[in-house]
Amino acid sequence: MEEVPGAFGSSASFALRLGQTVFSTSSLLFMSLDVDFYGYSAFCYLVTVMGLVIPWSITLLVVDAYSIFIKCLPYQHRLILIILLGDMILSYLTLAAACSTASVTDLLLDADGSYCPSKLCDRYQLSAAMAFLSWFLSSASFLFNFWLFPSL
Amino acid sequence: MEEVPGAFGSSASFALRLGQTVFSTSSLLFMSLDVDFYGYSAFCYLVTVMGLVIPWSITLLVVDAYSIFIKCLPYQHRLILIILLGDMILSYLTLAAACSTASVTDLLLDADGSYCPSKLCDRYQLSAAMAFLSWFLSSASFLFNFWLFPSL
Repeated sequence: MEEVPGAFGSSASFALRLGQTVFSTSSLLFMSLDVDFYGYSAFCYLVTVMGLVIPWSITLLVVDAYSIFIKCLPYQHRLILIILLGDMILSYLTLAAACSTASVTDLLLDADGSYCPSKLCDRYQLSAAMAFLSWFLSSASFLFNFWLFPSL
Repeated sequence: MEEVPGAFGSSASFALRLGQTVFSTSSLLFMSLDVDFYGYSAFCYLVTVMGLVIPWSITLLVVDAYSIFIKCLPYQHRLILIILLGDMILSYLTLAAACSTASVTDLLLDADGSYCPSKLCDRYQLSAAMAFLSWFLSSASFLFNFWLFPSL
């Protein structure tokens, strides 16, 4: 079986998971610190999704680190399937949350300055941008693992 | 090389393409007939994306129909790669458009009845729902072709 760079247990996968953790955490922080995000359902959705993505990324970051630095874990069909499904669902949810946040922010900016003071809207936009970056990396993880899967 | 149901040239693929064509066309029609969609950037984005998805789906529908009913086309590495990339990009764009439309409609419903008369808002919601269905099928096409690809 060929080694797929970026698939579970490789150092590229470790880097991807690290990026996901950083971007999803910063998206959550930009949205939730000092912002009344619960006024808009799209922002609540982003916070919920990031609350799922962060523990998932951290868990897999730890597993990848263990596999690289301590003891190489063997590929197990069932384990890769679970990671694959989790990555697929979370990457779609992250994209959905990022798009919803971006479009609602855009509408608020268009509508009226009073709905969205400049400082707050910058925070929303940054949060959406971080969510997009997190989606990009989690989608890459999913595709690398999916590439590996048929050969198992 | 194994046959993958749902991959390019199979009858399941034909059914998926047919569904994509129907759902993306109805999404476009719900959004654009008698609606001033150009007032909101999310709705313009949906119309643009559907304008890309519809010709793509129809082209592949015709190619699949040719392959099933007239003459079985051989798998070509480059052709599958192009279909794969097109499906991937368009499925992500469709999901983004559907989420943006859904979240903007939700915000308009919450904000005030005057922004969004009940009849119009139903149209927006139907359009978003059709776009979600189109995304689901186009994502399935992408995953089936991606499953086939490493064995080529």
